[in-house]
Amino acid sequence: MSGFRRIAILGIGLIGGSVAAAVRARALAEEIVGFAPEPHAAQALEAKLIDRAAANAAEAVDGAQLVVLAAPIPALPRLFEEISVNLTDDALLTDVASTKQSTISAARLALGARFANYLAAHPIAGGERHGPQAARADLFEGCLTLLCPQTETSEPARDQVGAFWESLGARVSEIDAIDHDRIFAEVSHWPHAMVFALCAAIAAGSWPQDALRFAGAGLRDTTRIGASSPELWTDILLDNRDAVLACAGSCDQQVRAVTSALRTGDRQRLLELFSVGARWRSHLPTPGR
Amino acid sequence: MSGFRRIAILGIGLIGGSVAAAVRARALAEEIVGFAPEPHAAQALEAKLIDRAAANAAEAVDGAQLVVLAAPIPALPRLFEEISVNLTDDALLTDVASTKQSTISAARLALGARFANYLAAHPIAGGERHGPQAARADLFEGCLTLLCPQTETSEPARDQVGAFWESLGARVSEIDAIDHDRIFAEVSHWPHAMVFALCAAIAAGSWPQDALRFAGAGLRDTTRIGASSPELWTDILLDNRDAVLACAGSCDQQVRAVTSALRTGDRQRLLELFSVGARWRSHLPTPGR
Repeated sequence: MSGFRRIAILGIGLIGGSVAAAVRARALAEEIVGFAPEPHAAQALEAKLIDRAAANAAEAVDGAQLVVLAAPIPALPRLFEEISVNLTDDALLTDVASTKQSTISAARLALGARFANYLAAHPIAGGERHGPQAARADLFEGCLTLLCPQTETSEPARDQVGAFWESLGARVSEIDAIDHDRIFAEVSHWPHAMVFALCAAIAAGSWPQDALRFAGAGLRDTTRIGASSPELWTDILLDNRDAVLACAGSCDQQVRAVTSALRTGDRQRLLELFSVGARWRSHLPTPGR
Repeated sequence: MSGFRRIAILGIGLIGGSVAAAVRARALAEEIVGFAPEPHAAQALEAKLIDRAAANAAEAVDGAQLVVLAAPIPALPRLFEEISVNLTDDALLTDVASTKQSTISAARLALGARFANYLAAHPIAGGERHGPQAARADLFEGCLTLLCPQTETSEPARDQVGAFWESLGARVSEIDAIDHDRIFAEVSHWPHAMVFALCAAIAAGSWPQDALRFAGAGLRDTTRIGASSPELWTDILLDNRDAVLACAGSCDQQVRAVTSALRTGDRQRLLELFSVGARWRSHLPTPGR
């Protein structure tokens, strides 16, 4: 795709910073303007992720041909409002939020006719490290990015924003926003809550120090996402509450079946329950193998 | 340490096979005799992990100076009995079981005076791949191996078996068997059950195929141990039932606190709960960083 004269990135954490780094590495824009709270803005400038830090969101999007919203979910409704007054008519918009229904609603509410220029996106990328210092130009390479076009979304916006994500190295695919939020409650949101809870149980138990010493590669991998940002995940879970609670219920049923079989010493039942889980897991592709 | 004339390995899966491979790679024995059910014995011979497959456990330990029991936990009591008639007076014994109290009890019961020659061990190594074909000569390099000497354990057995594990590259440390089983319920046994349950919930949910497609690196890492052997883990959990059920209870408390805060939209409480978990996890060292 041809480059943009100016891209505005609102929110410069791991994802926003990596968008900036990838845009820079692939020379997709003449100028990258950022807006983020401190210390992120200063760190992003220092790391040369952005060319210029704007004083506010409206200033950041001034004259931008593409606006990428990468701020935490609770900040998005207000950001959409703040920028709506200053967007040029043909400025394209996209975001990176892990939940899509609420983001799309906020955009629809704030953007008016310009909602046609917006294509909601969710790059399936991340990591337990956060902030602009964790940004990587290759974060989106080969990474699936889900797009949620709406009936109002214009064809050019759909094509060009999709092409933008592809130009960062992502594989793109379209999905219904409700399906998206339900599936991600299951494969990401609830697992984060469960892992935080597991870590909290170990922390509150009799052996928090021994657990650190004796943890093998298994526990290290299982709990890796437990080192993620509690703030970020609190907000994602609250935003997708109903779907997450449904997953919590299904998982609780399975956990109860396991503890009940264990309590009664029902080896056959325990083996069946574990085998169902292991069979599903065996189909999950391992990259690089 | 000086080498052994003959080492017998009973049970040749990932761990037993890796002991064989490491003994071979480090030239620690003139002969490695194995005993394992098929197809493991044939695979171990074909992979040249062992020099000879014995027809039964008693034959395998005949003339061996060191016996390594690496069979599944339910097989151990009978193996100890079968070999006890054929052990030479000074044959050293060790094992690799993930639970220590029951293994030590079985050995004490079967071995009589020769229990003094036995040092219970638990190398903190493994992986979701299993069988002798997954064996690696470097599996124990830098890996912590916990030893549980008993009052009856002779000084030479304690020294020489400890030295054997070190000669495979392991770091060794002694621990009380009851503490061991409680700590490993927390850092390994219960997390396996929980991950199997999470995978089973996804498998039984509305989106098992979509979940495979949309799972990111987070879910892949969180559920990696869910690809482990259901049989192996069923037996470990049953063997350490009380300690595991205690962990299940603590974890359930945390999960309930999380779902309750989520249901009532108590952001502050959710943030606190997640922060406790994340703080503990932040202390877990990441190898290679």
